[in-house]
Amino acid sequence: LPAHLQADPLGVQKFCIDIVDATADTVCAFKPQIAYFAAIGAEAQLQAVCDHIRTQYPHIVLILDAKRGDIGDTASLYAREAYERYQADAVTVNPYLGTDSLEPFLRTTGKGTIVLCRTSNPGSAEFQSQLINNEPLYQVIARTAATKWNTVGDCALVVGATYPTELAEVRAIVGDMPLLVPGIGAQGGDVQAAVTSGRTANGTGLIINSSRAVLYASNGTDFAHAARTVALSTRDAIRQFSN
Amino acid sequence: LPAHLQADPLGVQKFCIDIVDATADTVCAFKPQIAYFAAIGAEAQLQAVCDHIRTQYPHIVLILDAKRGDIGDTASLYAREAYERYQADAVTVNPYLGTDSLEPFLRTTGKGTIVLCRTSNPGSAEFQSQLINNEPLYQVIARTAATKWNTVGDCALVVGATYPTELAEVRAIVGDMPLLVPGIGAQGGDVQAAVTSGRTANGTGLIINSSRAVLYASNGTDFAHAARTVALSTRDAIRQFSN
Repeated sequence: LPAHLQADPLGVQKFCIDIVDATADTVCAFKPQIAYFAAIGAEAQLQAVCDHIRTQYPHIVLILDAKRGDIGDTASLYAREAYERYQADAVTVNPYLGTDSLEPFLRTTGKGTIVLCRTSNPGSAEFQSQLINNEPLYQVIARTAATKWNTVGDCALVVGATYPTELAEVRAIVGDMPLLVPGIGAQGGDVQAAVTSGRTANGTGLIINSSRAVLYASNGTDFAHAARTVALSTRDAIRQFSN
Repeated sequence: LPAHLQADPLGVQKFCIDIVDATADTVCAFKPQIAYFAAIGAEAQLQAVCDHIRTQYPHIVLILDAKRGDIGDTASLYAREAYERYQADAVTVNPYLGTDSLEPFLRTTGKGTIVLCRTSNPGSAEFQSQLINNEPLYQVIARTAATKWNTVGDCALVVGATYPTELAEVRAIVGDMPLLVPGIGAQGGDVQAAVTSGRTANGTGLIINSSRAVLYASNGTDFAHAARTVALSTRDAIRQFSN
């Protein structure tokens, strides 16, 4: 947090809301990462941020990045956490436990389920790229999502911008399904490679996420203005390559 | 919750603490499931329950069942949530993102990391049993845990009591590593099969978990006494087969 907000008990909330207000006209989605709030016991501040987004920017997609994954009854509670408590339009989930663990999310009408496929971290190949009948696990996940989970168009996948080759492979498998693409900005993924590898035939289908590069563009009192500058240049870079 | 606690804003906390006090001399570990608290915005009550366990029963292992899994920086925040905020001795985590996503947990000195291997839910085979070079993914996870993650003896695995054959296979791979075994009680796993399949050569190595059968043994004012009765009979059933 910028110094002037560090002593404020609602500093995190004020910081996030200022970032939201400064960037709302430059984005298609906001994706708060719940771990940053959970680590410091700031769930109420996250609720306030989500409520602000829902109230002030109802047209912008609110994605809760929580990467939940649990057995059925527990998964239903995590769905309630994301969709009701935080009013999220969509939530990120982990597929390791199988289809039955995703059903409480998928069957929630009008809400999106964004399944981890090929994540942006350096070690994501370790299990995700293991071959199953000559097909890497992340492609099995992508195919299962396209054929089994996305029955009503409310499913998307996470594929990191740090792996443009895999991004193109997933796009080839899933048709026009939306892909959430983290990894540009602080993680070093290339915008041009991500867009050209991941876009659909008509040049859309991507939610390209930059978090830290925007949030931490400045640690001074000008943080929101600096965030807007980075958000605008990121948007422009994405647009430059999307047609 | 029993009727007499439903109108109490601290009803969840009181319920859990009464269960803890009624069963503490019958268990080796408590494993609160964070989703039940997160769905209703009751993190402060979970903190109070964990604080009660840590203060009153410092010899009993406190496992936070959170099944976290995220990239490095975010994983560090989830580790902080589990180990610091909730004072857990160990936390359940999801291996899909790979070793680098587990490192913030594994490298925390004196704390345990319990990795999902073969989960207890009906659909867990869908991805976990896919063959990679003729070895199911859950066995790849088990082998990786035994050879790579458990370097200082602070790693364990989750294998469901509902799959005793797989439990025996994992035991054969991991030697004396502890296994957290959910799935008896409400999920229908057989105690005898779980114990005989999962125990180490000297008859130990298992943390066998029963949650709902104990928690919901009665929905009346006698809930804690009823929970104790089920906990005792479960403990006795486990002991009967463990030698």
